[in-house]
Amino acid sequence: MIFNHFETGRSFAEKLDREDKLRHFRDKFYNPEENTIYLDGNSLGKLPLATRENLKQVIDGQWGTRLIRSWNEGWYSRSAESGKKLARIIGAGEDEVIISDSTSMNLYKLAYAALRLRTGRKKIVSDELNFPTDLYVLQGLIDQFGEDYELKLARSENGITVSLEEIEKVVDGDTALVVLSHVAFKSAFMYDMKAVSSLVHRKGALVLWDLSHAAGAVPVDLQGSRTDLAVGCTYKYLNGGPGAPAYLYISKEIQEKLFSPVWGWFGEADPFAFDLEYRPAPGIRKFLVGTPPVLSLEAIDPGLDIILEAGMDNLRKKSVMQSQYLVLLFEQLLKEHGFSMGSPADPALRGSHLSFQHPEAYRICKALIEPQNTHIRVIPDFRAPDNIRV
Amino acid sequence: MIFNHFETGRSFAEKLDREDKLRHFRDKFYNPEENTIYLDGNSLGKLPLATRENLKQVIDGQWGTRLIRSWNEGWYSRSAESGKKLARIIGAGEDEVIISDSTSMNLYKLAYAALRLRTGRKKIVSDELNFPTDLYVLQGLIDQFGEDYELKLARSENGITVSLEEIEKVVDGDTALVVLSHVAFKSAFMYDMKAVSSLVHRKGALVLWDLSHAAGAVPVDLQGSRTDLAVGCTYKYLNGGPGAPAYLYISKEIQEKLFSPVWGWFGEADPFAFDLEYRPAPGIRKFLVGTPPVLSLEAIDPGLDIILEAGMDNLRKKSVMQSQYLVLLFEQLLKEHGFSMGSPADPALRGSHLSFQHPEAYRICKALIEPQNTHIRVIPDFRAPDNIRV
Repeated sequence: MIFNHFETGRSFAEKLDREDKLRHFRDKFYNPEENTIYLDGNSLGKLPLATRENLKQVIDGQWGTRLIRSWNEGWYSRSAESGKKLARIIGAGEDEVIISDSTSMNLYKLAYAALRLRTGRKKIVSDELNFPTDLYVLQGLIDQFGEDYELKLARSENGITVSLEEIEKVVDGDTALVVLSHVAFKSAFMYDMKAVSSLVHRKGALVLWDLSHAAGAVPVDLQGSRTDLAVGCTYKYLNGGPGAPAYLYISKEIQEKLFSPVWGWFGEADPFAFDLEYRPAPGIRKFLVGTPPVLSLEAIDPGLDIILEAGMDNLRKKSVMQSQYLVLLFEQLLKEHGFSMGSPADPALRGSHLSFQHPEAYRICKALIEPQNTHIRVIPDFRAPDNIRV
Repeated sequence: MIFNHFETGRSFAEKLDREDKLRHFRDKFYNPEENTIYLDGNSLGKLPLATRENLKQVIDGQWGTRLIRSWNEGWYSRSAESGKKLARIIGAGEDEVIISDSTSMNLYKLAYAALRLRTGRKKIVSDELNFPTDLYVLQGLIDQFGEDYELKLARSENGITVSLEEIEKVVDGDTALVVLSHVAFKSAFMYDMKAVSSLVHRKGALVLWDLSHAAGAVPVDLQGSRTDLAVGCTYKYLNGGPGAPAYLYISKEIQEKLFSPVWGWFGEADPFAFDLEYRPAPGIRKFLVGTPPVLSLEAIDPGLDIILEAGMDNLRKKSVMQSQYLVLLFEQLLKEHGFSMGSPADPALRGSHLSFQHPEAYRICKALIEPQNTHIRVIPDFRAPDNIRV
């Protein structure tokens, strides 16, 4: 097992690079600064060269030249088409994923729909490690549905993981929906999706996963884990570009029972009939709202192609090896300088990023990004109060 | 008065072109097909050359090179900054407009907020000429708020205009909100904003204008007309690009009383504190939701600059002259072939587009777009069942 053979020192690292079968994928991205080591794909993925080429065509050819005609030449179906492609990365059926709006908006739409479907149940469950935005959206829905509704958070005993027992404590017969991040944004803690789904379903509730830090980073199997609902962004590991539109997933089984709170024309049965009465489109399309931001939407596809070509299992294998190597370096080089691990030690409980904690994390990040005594720039991610995320 | 001097014939048209003070603005846009006459800026505006240059920098420089650092180098404040610029075009204060989401989403958020503010009043008013999407969003809100709520549409007697009397008939003491398009998408009928506002306010309701077919097409004075709320898209007359993010306006007077149904992190008081409890940002920013689609967002600014440089009054003057000229050509050349006017005859009652009706409108549009016997291609807009919009 390769994990026993890790060594510190440059020559060993170079050996790993040479043996890396995914090595040539680096050349599929725009790398203008050879001395910058970018470790922040967990926040904003890099620019694929194919996207760069594609955008030239979108701007000059589609917008600039074809103009309005481009709606019938690809734009109109892109939300569904890119959704189909993404479905292959997250273990979903091809009519179960659609690109739409932002992650927050999608969470709002799906959580609202779930509360309506489970009328009578008045509790939403999440956890303390969830991305705060997700909690904000849920708090807003509680405010909207009324005083007898509540949001209950499962506790994390160590700030890094949440046990299945803690989830079990807060999910009950009054729970309509459980909303969790598959991979936690700060600690990278990763839930066992299947185990959580099964627990949630036993109580008659629906489960909604936020895949923002998971899709493209770890293998995800939405169908296999019997997931009801999911949302996520495309601008991290999927390399879709800054603020690229997000996606939503609805299990085929419940698609016809769920309705969006926002009755938009891209979700209407026949938008160009301009009928005065709304009729929801069949299937998942009814969760589309308004005209999508085409430049950002058209930037998504090439990044998905790269993931599909590399293969999620290969990516996971490399990711585990890299992060285990990094843990070794941490043990041997960083620990004595007041750093501690902010992520689970067991790679099976982690996504693909790692958090290291240090009281001076903010200044350390700053020094890495704007180095004074070296020409090598390293870009990690700072997450308050003391996390360096790589 | 120039309207008396219109003549048919090419030499007169060329004379008008020569005398056109805005003539050089054509060169600020990408015009790759010299034989294409694009008359569909009311649906998708053309690509400004400055946007084309700007996008290269956004893609290679900001995303490709600066990566995550770009958030602090312009992206994060762009929604507010472009909002300030747009405010100057629509007569709003600089803290009253923000770029966000799609028009439908913004209408949803603002109409929801208005219904909550006017709790107890259970009626929303709109009209039969409104863009169907706007009606869909309102129908969705009615469904959400409950059975005792209703959407009431003011009638149009002729399918082209709506009289103030018809509005007055349906607005009463139970009306929470009146939602109208300043310029109707099909007929181009334009309301007197000030007169409607004053009527609505007398009944204690709020007024919300959809400016999608107005902003950049006609002078709009939101403050002068005492408008409470407005939404609109940036991809028509403002030339922001396909599906470019929309905007919303909230009068300073009521900003602190309104709250978004979607509690998103870009609308949170201090998003990067990652606090678990949502606190709305002060002012209009609380109506932002998730991460904006940066490529599409960054495409908006140069189009706004062009409008500001040309001046709305100059644009309106030219637009009225052009459309009056077109009406003359219609009278002399088209009328006898079964065409009729689908827009008000009085330019003061119209936005900047014109609709002509013909039973064969669909086929006529098709023949103009894909000409068989001429090298000149004309791109108008077909709107079911029988409108040719230019």
